[in-house]
Amino acid sequence: MTTPLFKGIIAYPITPFDHNDKVNIPLFRKQVERLVVSGAHGIAPLGSTGVMPYMSDEEKEAVTEAAIQQVGKRVLTLVGVSNLTTERTIYHAEFAEKAGATAVMIIPMSYWKLTDDEIVKHYDAVASRISIPIMAYNNPATGGVDMSPVLLKRLLQIPNVTMIKESTGDVQRMHYLRKELGNDVAFYNGSNPLALAAFAAGAAGWCTAAPNLIPALTLALYEAIQRNDLNKAREVFYQQLDLLKFIVARGLPRAIKKGLELLGEDGGELRSPLQSLSDSDTAELEGILSALGK
Amino acid sequence: MTTPLFKGIIAYPITPFDHNDKVNIPLFRKQVERLVVSGAHGIAPLGSTGVMPYMSDEEKEAVTEAAIQQVGKRVLTLVGVSNLTTERTIYHAEFAEKAGATAVMIIPMSYWKLTDDEIVKHYDAVASRISIPIMAYNNPATGGVDMSPVLLKRLLQIPNVTMIKESTGDVQRMHYLRKELGNDVAFYNGSNPLALAAFAAGAAGWCTAAPNLIPALTLALYEAIQRNDLNKAREVFYQQLDLLKFIVARGLPRAIKKGLELLGEDGGELRSPLQSLSDSDTAELEGILSALGK
Amino acid sequence: MTTPLFKGIIAYPITPFDHNDKVNIPLFRKQVERLVVSGAHGIAPLGSTGVMPYMSDEEKEAVTEAAIQQVGKRVLTLVGVSNLTTERTIYHAEFAEKAGATAVMIIPMSYWKLTDDEIVKHYDAVASRISIPIMAYNNPATGGVDMSPVLLKRLLQIPNVTMIKESTGDVQRMHYLRKELGNDVAFYNGSNPLALAAFAAGAAGWCTAAPNLIPALTLALYEAIQRNDLNKAREVFYQQLDLLKFIVARGLPRAIKKGLELLGEDGGELRSPLQSLSDSDTAELEGILSALGK
Amino acid sequence: MTTPLFKGIIAYPITPFDHNDKVNIPLFRKQVERLVVSGAHGIAPLGSTGVMPYMSDEEKEAVTEAAIQQVGKRVLTLVGVSNLTTERTIYHAEFAEKAGATAVMIIPMSYWKLTDDEIVKHYDAVASRISIPIMAYNNPATGGVDMSPVLLKRLLQIPNVTMIKESTGDVQRMHYLRKELGNDVAFYNGSNPLALAAFAAGAAGWCTAAPNLIPALTLALYEAIQRNDLNKAREVFYQQLDLLKFIVARGLPRAIKKGLELLGEDGGELRSPLQSLSDSDTAELEGILSALGK
Repeated sequence: MTTPLFKGIIAYPITPFDHNDKVNIPLFRKQVERLVVSGAHGIAPLGSTGVMPYMSDEEKEAVTEAAIQQVGKRVLTLVGVSNLTTERTIYHAEFAEKAGATAVMIIPMSYWKLTDDEIVKHYDAVASRISIPIMAYNNPATGGVDMSPVLLKRLLQIPNVTMIKESTGDVQRMHYLRKELGNDVAFYNGSNPLALAAFAAGAAGWCTAAPNLIPALTLALYEAIQRNDLNKAREVFYQQLDLLKFIVARGLPRAIKKGLELLGEDGGELRSPLQSLSDSDTAELEGILSALGK
Repeated sequence: MTTPLFKGIIAYPITPFDHNDKVNIPLFRKQVERLVVSGAHGIAPLGSTGVMPYMSDEEKEAVTEAAIQQVGKRVLTLVGVSNLTTERTIYHAEFAEKAGATAVMIIPMSYWKLTDDEIVKHYDAVASRISIPIMAYNNPATGGVDMSPVLLKRLLQIPNVTMIKESTGDVQRMHYLRKELGNDVAFYNGSNPLALAAFAAGAAGWCTAAPNLIPALTLALYEAIQRNDLNKAREVFYQQLDLLKFIVARGLPRAIKKGLELLGEDGGELRSPLQSLSDSDTAELEGILSALGK
Repeated sequence: MTTPLFKGIIAYPITPFDHNDKVNIPLFRKQVERLVVSGAHGIAPLGSTGVMPYMSDEEKEAVTEAAIQQVGKRVLTLVGVSNLTTERTIYHAEFAEKAGATAVMIIPMSYWKLTDDEIVKHYDAVASRISIPIMAYNNPATGGVDMSPVLLKRLLQIPNVTMIKESTGDVQRMHYLRKELGNDVAFYNGSNPLALAAFAAGAAGWCTAAPNLIPALTLALYEAIQRNDLNKAREVFYQQLDLLKFIVARGLPRAIKKGLELLGEDGGELRSPLQSLSDSDTAELEGILSALGK
Repeated sequence: MTTPLFKGIIAYPITPFDHNDKVNIPLFRKQVERLVVSGAHGIAPLGSTGVMPYMSDEEKEAVTEAAIQQVGKRVLTLVGVSNLTTERTIYHAEFAEKAGATAVMIIPMSYWKLTDDEIVKHYDAVASRISIPIMAYNNPATGGVDMSPVLLKRLLQIPNVTMIKESTGDVQRMHYLRKELGNDVAFYNGSNPLALAAFAAGAAGWCTAAPNLIPALTLALYEAIQRNDLNKAREVFYQQLDLLKFIVARGLPRAIKKGLELLGEDGGELRSPLQSLSDSDTAELEGILSALGK
């Protein structure tokens, strides 16, 4: 098996705004720094967690540059560049490459449900314009389209599409990917409550916003898997499961912002229409964090 | 029952592009003109059919102005102004009002699934900034969120949210709307294959791209309903059903563009990643149109 | 269009039990009599409403004979004879024919999801042993299998499979049936809340338990359709919609039994594990019936 | 953690019929014997695999006695006694206890969707009549009802309901069971393609028909888990995954019968409407088995 480019915990920062609805770049850099020093193996700005689709081109460029500069090659960077149109996706992918990103992540956002041919053409057009690797990302819940394993296989024939991120939450998808794509294609889990099952199935890494709140537990799970210690992996997974389920159920940007505040950190503001967690949800999150000794 | 603002056939133009991926405004105006002279009761630019989410702010402003000028108050205009952020939605709603739109249509686009409170706050923020009526539009297939009848009821308490467009394709939703909202709230059907069932259930109008290809048949259905002639309505509905199902299944922008070409009209270009219909789909559409004597 | 065998309101009696969990045949005959005298165009014992799958062979035979004798050819009879095994289905179909049933209704009950070939073979085996017509019944919610329109078309090639009952609750299925099967195949609606949409789409009849509680309203809907009076049909449909939705949501046997009691009739007992409606559901039903002047 | 009653591989025999559609008891005993000597930790007659719902009371009694006698207490026995009515479920549960079964398995079969209260009352009525343990079995795909984790928790308050079998195929259900029910409640996996994920999540055992065809591989998976060797477990899981997926996709009774024949064993006949695998499916199964060196 080829060693995959990314391995382990790939941490997703949120994008904090200030009270005037502007991106708060200094706070963003501070949040990225926390993720790096707490041990994440990679940093992925402008994911769903980073509310990428809610931002203007200029804002996304500023966040891309800030993330890459702050990381400073201490770990790898994976930048989200997805866009509804092919033209804008190319634009952001080229920008990320120039800014120094290790790789880009692309989900085929769709308002109109795309055909398989349209999706292949879309990735192909972007791939031909950059030389860094592409992680194809499947997440029907946010992207609106569900890429079948057959389609993913077609995408992997494009030279620099080398990684797959699966967020359907169905472990049998991962089984299929491993069986069909073979050991040489790295796949990544993007569904937090599936972290244990995905590693058991052979996922190379876990794309997650959880390190914003519980970095040590996410690392402990990966390390137990690395040591082939299933019993320990199961134990640390069940410890963090309530938190993983909560942040997914309430929406990652909302839950991480509030969690940071409960931990004494500045979470920044959300951009409308996204609003802060309700009081009862906040109380539930507080209970989960305090059960973890936070 | 109060007379609803819009009644009958509300026709949705596509947005044609040129070979340089620019909006083709002269062609757009020509397509709008065809819809007006063929008898549509209203014109709705920048809907899903008009690929609104794939366009820049400037492009949407140009299309809004072109549509309203071309219509010239001969019929009503309903302009799509939906956006992921509340701030941009307000911006486009204000623009449409200033440009002379009769009303605006807003779907709560969502990348992150919005809570009911967030959706209410979103509509409320927009409504407080304009004085023309708002049609709230529910279409989980393209917008990503399914507004429950309970939520729609809350939205209708905002003074200028006065119309509901339902595109779930579930006729029982329309029954619920009529029962719960009473006769004074107009609801509109946005699901083409549901046209007969929706009118039978009491829909005030039909939001549809079909008049681009078969204006007379869509009008004939509405007129039969107006005359309380169910047998005739059923007959003309079954005549056009194959076409209605085809344009939905293949995606409205793709199907209307190709249909226009088959009728000898200029359909313009699509914007990537959307691609033209495949040859086999084109042949199927040709068969359907020629069975209708086109 | 050939005149269909059954037309209008096909009424489904429940099967009442006594306090010793035995079928209460005298009460059943009384309930059948109520349906006949209140104007139903057909009587269908041993449907889902009649809890057929919960009964022994002997019990089903007794109910079949009681229903046919009580009806005494005043209207048509349609007897449910479905069974998991082909052998038992044949047995009950032969019994029903000998007892004098006008036709039998067969749903392909499935514990193991049957293939299309298995379903065709199943119907074919039964059809070859009887000479009365068969109504093929599609109801994934209770039967566990969803017969596609393509499969239904295959079944209609068996000479005495001449009628289709659709209970998916999707009006577009009915559109398909009418388009694909042509005017000569009668289809029947088995989804109560779809009654108006189904008649609008051309259904020949409505298979329903509602006449146990509101016979006049169900007849009024059919008669308005017969007179091509959509406005009246819509009006009487909305009058009865709350009741139609209630009896489906709570389960027909439970809701009809309790409704009969609220109307001053003997509803008999249910067979375990089915239990009587809860107090709050009973109060809701009481409210719905009293709003109808009952 | 209390030691669970059943652990490891719980093997499900099919029920073979002869050419006259009678249960072939001698062949059934031979098939049970194969499962015992190949190392299964428990034998479970009259499951879905054993086509229990397709059989008469007398046939089920004969199969129960034959299985228990053939096993002869060498391993544990778990007898399926589910029935649509409470009265018949009690009858078969009492019969199984008298015949010497270690425990019974009960799925709340439903034609009419049961309420939670009805399901609790059903289990309670059966439990009060027997003294051996009950495994509550959740399988919406065959049983028609999906028991929520909340309901399962209620069932576990009945003293002899001590085990849960989950067949939804959703690993997150297992996470929930482990978190909510605690370590003292044993849960079992009934979804073959979920075998690895379920053991990783802490399942006590795997209820499976696969040992009819690949006993050594199923045991090897369990043993790797017992040794805390995730890498080995993953390896043997992927070896058998194609077979596991095939037998589920084609229906266990059909696939196991044909698989036995391909292995040179007598598979007996199926009962109509179930039919033998098609030629192309048979060829696919042959390929899968020969890739496993069979």
